[in-house]
Amino acid sequence: MRYAVLGTGVVGRTIAAKLASLGHQVTIGTRNPAATLARTEPDAMGTEPFADWHAAHPSVSLKPFAEAAASGETVVNTTAGDATLSVLNAAGSANLAGKVLIDVANPLDFSRGMPPSLNPVNTDSLAEQVQRAFPGARVVKTLNTMNCRVMVEPGRVAGEHHVFVSGDDTDAKAQVTKLLVSFGWPPSSVIDLGGIETARGAEMLLPIWLRLLGALGHTDFNFHIQGARQHVSQ
Amino acid sequence: MRYAVLGTGVVGRTIAAKLASLGHQVTIGTRNPAATLARTEPDAMGTEPFADWHAAHPSVSLKPFAEAAASGETVVNTTAGDATLSVLNAAGSANLAGKVLIDVANPLDFSRGMPPSLNPVNTDSLAEQVQRAFPGARVVKTLNTMNCRVMVEPGRVAGEHHVFVSGDDTDAKAQVTKLLVSFGWPPSSVIDLGGIETARGAEMLLPIWLRLLGALGHTDFNFHIQGARQHVSQ
Repeated sequence: MRYAVLGTGVVGRTIAAKLASLGHQVTIGTRNPAATLARTEPDAMGTEPFADWHAAHPSVSLKPFAEAAASGETVVNTTAGDATLSVLNAAGSANLAGKVLIDVANPLDFSRGMPPSLNPVNTDSLAEQVQRAFPGARVVKTLNTMNCRVMVEPGRVAGEHHVFVSGDDTDAKAQVTKLLVSFGWPPSSVIDLGGIETARGAEMLLPIWLRLLGALGHTDFNFHIQGARQHVSQ
Repeated sequence: MRYAVLGTGVVGRTIAAKLASLGHQVTIGTRNPAATLARTEPDAMGTEPFADWHAAHPSVSLKPFAEAAASGETVVNTTAGDATLSVLNAAGSANLAGKVLIDVANPLDFSRGMPPSLNPVNTDSLAEQVQRAFPGARVVKTLNTMNCRVMVEPGRVAGEHHVFVSGDDTDAKAQVTKLLVSFGWPPSSVIDLGGIETARGAEMLLPIWLRLLGALGHTDFNFHIQGARQHVSQ
């Protein structure tokens, strides 16, 4: 399948590399490819320049957001939450219409200090904002509740653990579930929370995820809903 | 030990019964004991009248909030989140000073429809509000992330699963951890998230808990942090 991955950060690179390794045709979207490729220094988090990553992943294309979105049959949003709507506007609603739009982003708000809070939160969610802004897209929230290495290699965390899907389109969730299984998630590890409104619950896991990161000191952990299995796999 | 349990709802009754079964001296606090005992009909949720429950648990005393709090060496808040500060004010700061105050409540806000949202949320938490309002109390947030039957009988959920503690007082958290172990929680199942601020994370689990309740159709589930064990038990 042809995938567009919007965002050049660690999450986008990790998902793009996994999709490419599975034989998919992957285009990463960015605002200005020339500017993205021109950076030669690691960013503030120590992440290697995109050009270095790209040299190691030559099968992945880099295009402006709109071209990338147009090229994808399925679009994955891996941008920062506060950039998501702007990026999707740049991608263009016509390039999202009818497509499965996998929203991996979290609406982290760093304006009030660390650890970040969320915005929107509680009575709204980023996934709902995206679905409202792009009613033609078939938005599925998933994978936002774990570190990106765990997203594409769930076996990094030993034992059973879960990934959530939220969305109003049943077929879109079924397609995303197949993708998750191809990433290594057992079918029984995918919990369908319900409609896109349930993304509020998934996004609101971030505050405890961040504090668990502080308490545990590593990112190879994930939520497991103990007691879910016998009822979920019907 | 002498415990005061503030609140006559299902959570308060369940914890009071467990404490009494462990040999503790338990006083339940309510606004008006005579009025609480006078009710003869089940409430809107079908919960049996308190008097019927009390008849089956005669060792548990029922007193006004202030008397109950005064009698307890440790105080447990099991009230509805929107009543918590009012109840604790009625209990009186002098009756809470120096004591461990176990906060089990969730700040559920039913004013915006179902499922409830949270208030406070995100940049504050009920536990922090309580700690600010009663600086002499040693507030520990715990047990708010599961059904009350699981709180006092964790074996209802098969396999490993976790209970979180948040609080600024290390000795208070150690005392609460011992209590949790006496409830049946293995020591390795208790995750210390950090200071009282981390209660934001624990309270913000409620939105997904409520949606998992909808997706699973039962309450015998709990959060398990897969990947935590090898790092938590030092």
